[in-house]
Parts: sequence; structure tokens; C-alpha cells
Amino acid sequence: MEFRDQALAAREAAQVLAETPTGLKNAALHAMANALLESTDHLLASNAEDVRTAEANGTSGSLIDRLRLTEDRIAGMADGLRQLADLADPVGDVVRGWTTDNGLRIRQVRVPFGVIGIIYEARPNVTADAGGICLKSGNASLLRGSSSTIRSNVAVVEALHRGLRSVGLPENAIQLVTGPREVTDDMMTARGLVDLLIPRGGAGLINHVVQNSTVPVIETGTGNCHLYVDADADLDMAHRIMLNAKTQRPSVCNALETVLVHKDVAERFLPRALWELGEAGVTVHGDTRTAGYSAAVVPAQEADFEEEWLSLDLSVRVVDSIEVAISHIRTFTSGHSETIITDSRRASDRFVAAIDAAAVLVNASSRFVDGGEFGFGAEIGISTQKLHARGPMALPEMTSTKYVVEGNGQVRG
Amino acid sequence: MEFRDQALAAREAAQVLAETPTGLKNAALHAMANALLESTDHLLASNAEDVRTAEANGTSGSLIDRLRLTEDRIAGMADGLRQLADLADPVGDVVRGWTTDNGLRIRQVRVPFGVIGIIYEARPNVTADAGGICLKSGNASLLRGSSSTIRSNVAVVEALHRGLRSVGLPENAIQLVTGPREVTDDMMTARGLVDLLIPRGGAGLINHVVQNSTVPVIETGTGNCHLYVDADADLDMAHRIMLNAKTQRPSVCNALETVLVHKDVAERFLPRALWELGEAGVTVHGDTRTAGYSAAVVPAQEADFEEEWLSLDLSVRVVDSIEVAISHIRTFTSGHSETIITDSRRASDRFVAAIDAAAVLVNASSRFVDGGEFGFGAEIGISTQKLHARGPMALPEMTSTKYVVEGNGQVRG
Repeated sequence: MEFRDQALAAREAAQVLAETPTGLKNAALHAMANALLESTDHLLASNAEDVRTAEANGTSGSLIDRLRLTEDRIAGMADGLRQLADLADPVGDVVRGWTTDNGLRIRQVRVPFGVIGIIYEARPNVTADAGGICLKSGNASLLRGSSSTIRSNVAVVEALHRGLRSVGLPENAIQLVTGPREVTDDMMTARGLVDLLIPRGGAGLINHVVQNSTVPVIETGTGNCHLYVDADADLDMAHRIMLNAKTQRPSVCNALETVLVHKDVAERFLPRALWELGEAGVTVHGDTRTAGYSAAVVPAQEADFEEEWLSLDLSVRVVDSIEVAISHIRTFTSGHSETIITDSRRASDRFVAAIDAAAVLVNASSRFVDGGEFGFGAEIGISTQKLHARGPMALPEMTSTKYVVEGNGQVRG
Repeated sequence: MEFRDQALAAREAAQVLAETPTGLKNAALHAMANALLESTDHLLASNAEDVRTAEANGTSGSLIDRLRLTEDRIAGMADGLRQLADLADPVGDVVRGWTTDNGLRIRQVRVPFGVIGIIYEARPNVTADAGGICLKSGNASLLRGSSSTIRSNVAVVEALHRGLRSVGLPENAIQLVTGPREVTDDMMTARGLVDLLIPRGGAGLINHVVQNSTVPVIETGTGNCHLYVDADADLDMAHRIMLNAKTQRPSVCNALETVLVHKDVAERFLPRALWELGEAGVTVHGDTRTAGYSAAVVPAQEADFEEEWLSLDLSVRVVDSIEVAISHIRTFTSGHSETIITDSRRASDRFVAAIDAAAVLVNASSRFVDGGEFGFGAEIGISTQKLHARGPMALPEMTSTKYVVEGNGQVRG
């Protein structure tokens, strides 16, 4: 099917979904979960072909790991869909409501966007996740996965379609967008057909979509996250949070990438910090003052502070004041999550007010900036833009609103 | 000054504004209002030059009317700024907040976008309005007005700057962007420097910005607004609302453009409706069935139903059912404001659920879809897009949010 026809079919399905009651959407999610489990053998076989092709193409081990499905991972996809069924339906929520002086009753009500396009890389689980989140929020989805997972994605979507059919919902509510590279361009310029595009993947993908899309985009995920150890920090806490934020899962966007240390505590903080980071296998890229505390420190270039390492690497710099720390973060932030460790109210107030990011943390690990940890139950990504949604995006962020105005004959004077 | 330097200066000013207390912003708004009034003579003289140039260029009377300043209009601009001072400051509002199981205190707090670019046509009052709205919401503004109002806009911004200076706020918080046409392109691609672009003007301007901007855009204002007269309508009410929505101010986006009449009431509704519209000077472009009721009806082409007339013209069609009305609106809507007149709950429920627009009205004139009428006190425009803001946009819509996460040493397990 041509992309335009797919998008038109998605719009029709979206009109059905917009008026589908919550109970039926939940029944669909459970049916989709069942269908995935029943398809386990077929999913594994299809995925094995994708893996073989990837291996033959010399794809890296870490990429193949993302692409690989196992029985556990398929069960995880099914569980994810069932969890969505348990979450509150945002559609129909009244955000606010009031009555005007002339008796008009006005309500601002959550409604689905309509058709959401998701462009993502080689993770077949995103196909089920994103399709499920869009369905629960009343949106039709156009899923553009990587060509390297095409067989797995086709198998996943076949299972989701069986689930949709079994409850009488249109298959076109969740569609895989296949075809050559140009189809992605078609998606990005399908203004009026696609209401929202969400790229999920590396900085390159996201930047390409942002630069070329005329459809509204929500950017997700680049995180050059900083931790500032203030002069009044509890240094034990600072050590613990730094290690957690850097090493608990280094490959994700809310992992720590740069530590800034106030000069007054550098001598007490850095020797133990550098030793512990070394023990944890972290390579420290430090400025001259940091390097003075350990021979293992790699001299940092200015460009290192721009780096979202996503690996066991960490940039470290000693700063003369909180203002220098703020100024450094303002220069290098990607607007994701920025942390201060301090016991001083004055310092935390200043930091929270001055730093412009999706999340600003005081005395906690940036690894908590996540839809699950926030208690949202589901997450389509973490927005690092300011329009519409900022920070972890869950079901309510996948909706727009409309005003419903009820009167009894009012005209404007 | 080059545009890039202006934008960098705006970013610096935005950092100041983001932390400026409400009282100081309000003092600035009053000082700006005073400065405008004190500048009345200079404003009138500068504006007279713009008007002379426009007249020499053969500009139409209605455009010259928009461009012209009078003492009353200058007083209106000053009043507008004072009213902004009376409105609640959205910055710092806690949208929601909760404590997680592990004791993290999370708040979602309203923060300014940073730098907002406004691109608008020949109305010098927009310069003061938009600058004031951005200031009150903590944003620096880059105002790109029409070249035909350049002298008036320079004079307005000079006055606003005097106001800002008098309370110690940076002048660069409100800047006029001048220079050749290419500067508009610079604004549209200033990703990272400009946080949001709002085009205010005709469909051509808005479409140009949407197509070419890599900076996030909020679309405002195209309104092909429909009114559906249901089989169960109170026909007196329908006549009254139709006339009001069409004729009270035909040139604005929430004015009525198309009437759809259920066939069962056509014979009772249309004769009087067509007579009243004729008396009010409205030209009716009607389908064949409508034309049967009056010789004055101009036969409608299909394209007439796409028309946002913005004049004393109205498209009228007789439909066989509410479903045909919904389907017509779905085809032709610009997503602004759609109205049903009915006494039937079933019909209004169906219409409200099925129609996807910024506002759906039951038994009231679409002219009420307006920030002032909604009670918002100020309006930067009416968004017809689904991302971030939909419908009348007031101060809260001019903000983003950030999450503030406070802990006492929490790390992720």
C-alpha cells in the first residue's frame, strides 16, 4: 500500500478509535497480548531471520542484542500491553471547566491527536509498546521501524491485528510503514494526514526528523546530564548518587555524563570519587584540576563536555562557584536532567530557578527521570523540547484537547 | 544588529525574565503603558508617515485602517498592558505534584519558553500586545512586523524600552526584528535560539512559516466555521445564532462561513434565514436545494465550501442527516469552531464526540471562541493545531513546564 493510502486508512481508523469506549480499548490490549504470546514461535522464527541477516551484514553485537527477541522479551511485550489496560484512559478527561457570566458552560476535554507516526530504530518491542500506547490514548499509529527488524515487526503487527480484529476494532488502527527510505520523507511531510511525529532513537535520527518534518514533532531523548557537587554537599550522598547515575545503566538518556565539583570540596570529594569510578570501570575525562588527583584521569578536551557518552566515560570539571556550574550547564545542557547535590537551600533554590531542563533534581539520581519511576506506568519517550510535553511522556501527553461550549442561545453583543 | 546577535541578546534577557518576580514584571507593564501614552505625539507622527507611504503604494483602505493609529488606539494599547498586569502570572504555577513511594517529591512547574518569535502583519497594536504578553509570561520576544508599519513599530518599541529601563529590566527582552525578507527565514531556522514561533496573519503567512520553519510553530487563526441546524433545533435560536455568528464581525476567524441545514427543517428554516441574511447584506452561496427557496441565492461551487469568506458571504447546504453534516464538516473543517443547534441530547452528544476542532459549540455563537470571551483576559491568538495549545491561547499557553525532583539521597536500584 502507498504511504498516502495507509495514512488515509489510519485517519478513518482514528475516527473510530476516538469514540471507542475505554473498556473496548482495554479488551483489545489484552487480546493483543494474548495474540503475541500465541505467536511466540512465529515471532522467534521471524526474528531469527532478522538476526541472521544482521549478523551476515556485520552488525555490532550491541545492536543485535537490541534486535533479538526471546521468550522472555515477548512475554515482556505482552505484559506491557496488559499494564496499559490497567492505566487510566486520558480521553474524555476534563482538564478544566467553568461557566461564564452569560451562562456558557465551557469544558476543556482531552481528545486523541488522531494519527501518530513513530519512527524508531532496531527494537521490535517498540512496535508493540508504541502501538499499544497510541491505541490506549485513542490514536491510530503509523509505525516506521528499522529495515533490519522488518520480519520481526511484520510478525508483531500481525499478532496485534489479530487482537484488534477479535474485539471488532479496525486493523488500520496500528500499521507498519514499510518500503524504501523515501517513505520516511513521505511521513515527515504528510501534514494534515499525520498529526504528530515522534522519532525514537539516536541524535542523528532525531535531528533528521526535526530538520525535515513539516508535521509537528516531539523530540525525545538526548541527554547530556550534569551533576553539580555544591560546596555544601553531603559528600557521601554525592558519591552514591554520582556512581548510581553514571553506572546503573550507562547507555540510557538519563545517565550521568558530566560532574562539576565546587573547588571548596574538590580535595575531599575527588580522590574517593575518582577511585570509586575507576573501580566501577569508568574512564574519567577531567580538567587540569581534576587530573591533579589521579594519574588515571584522561585530560579533557572542551569537546568532551559536549559528549553524551552513553558509555562508562565521564567528564569531570572543578568549578569556582555555583554560578560557574550554572553557566557551564547552560552552555552544554541538552535540556534533559540536571542535578545538584547540596544541603544549602540557597544553593538549591538558585540551581532550580536558573537551570532550564525537562527535570531539575536536588539530592537524587537522574536515573529517576523516567515514566515508570515517576509512576506514569507507561512511557513513549522523554521529551527534551518545550512545546506540548517536556520530560517523561505518558498517556495524557499523547492527547490534545478541545473546548466544548454549551449554551442556550447566547449570541455576542 | 544581525538577527543572530539579536537572538543571543534575547536569550540573555530571557534568563533574567525567567527569574524576575511578578511584581517587577507588573511594574514594567505599567511603565510601558505610561511610556506609550507619553509618546502619543511621536507615535502619531511616525504612524502618519507609514500611512502616507502605504497610500502612495496604493494600499487598500481596509489595510490602511488596520495600520492606522489614533489617540484612542494608543490608549487601547496602554490599557491592554495594564490589564496584563492584573492577570495571574503563570510562571511558577505547580501544574501537579506528588511524592513517590521512595520519597521523591516531584512537582511539574510552569516555566517560560525563553525566546518567542512573533511574525505578524500590519497592525502596530500587535507590537505592544505581543511584547506585553511575552513579558508577563517571562519570555523575551522577537517581533517581526510588516515593513509597512516599520516606523510605527519602531516608535512603539522605543516606548516599551523606556518602560523596561525605568524598572531596571533589560531592553532586549522586547526587540523589533527589522531588515530584509531573508531575516524572516533566519528566524524560522534559528533552532536553539528561538524556542517558539507564532505567526499571526493570513493563511498565506501561516502556511509559509509552517512549511519553512525548523523552530516549533503554533499555528493560529484560519477558521472555516460551520453551523449545523439539526432536525431538533429551536429554529428561532438557530436564526439568531446564525446571524450573530455571520454578521457581528465577519472579518475574524471565529465568524461563521458555512451553514448546514437538516432537510426536515429546511422548509421552515431557510425562507426566513435567507430573507434575514439578505437584509443583513449577506450573499448566500447555496446548493440546489437551498437555491429553491430564494432567487437571491448564488449557486454554490464545491470550492465555495472550502472558503473562509471573512466577508458578508455564506455557504449554505441542505443535508439529509446529522451524519452527512458531520462528514461535510470533517471534509472542510479548518479545526477552529464548529456549532450544532439542537434540542436533542443524542444529536449534541454525537456532534460533540465526532467533530474534531479547537471548539465545538452547542446552541451558542462561535463568536464566543475568543480569549476575552472565555475569561482569559488576554489572547495571543487562537491555535488551530493540536500540539501544545488548541483554541484561545492566553498566558498559561505561553509557558512550558519543568519537573523539579527533590530527594534526600535516593539512588535507583
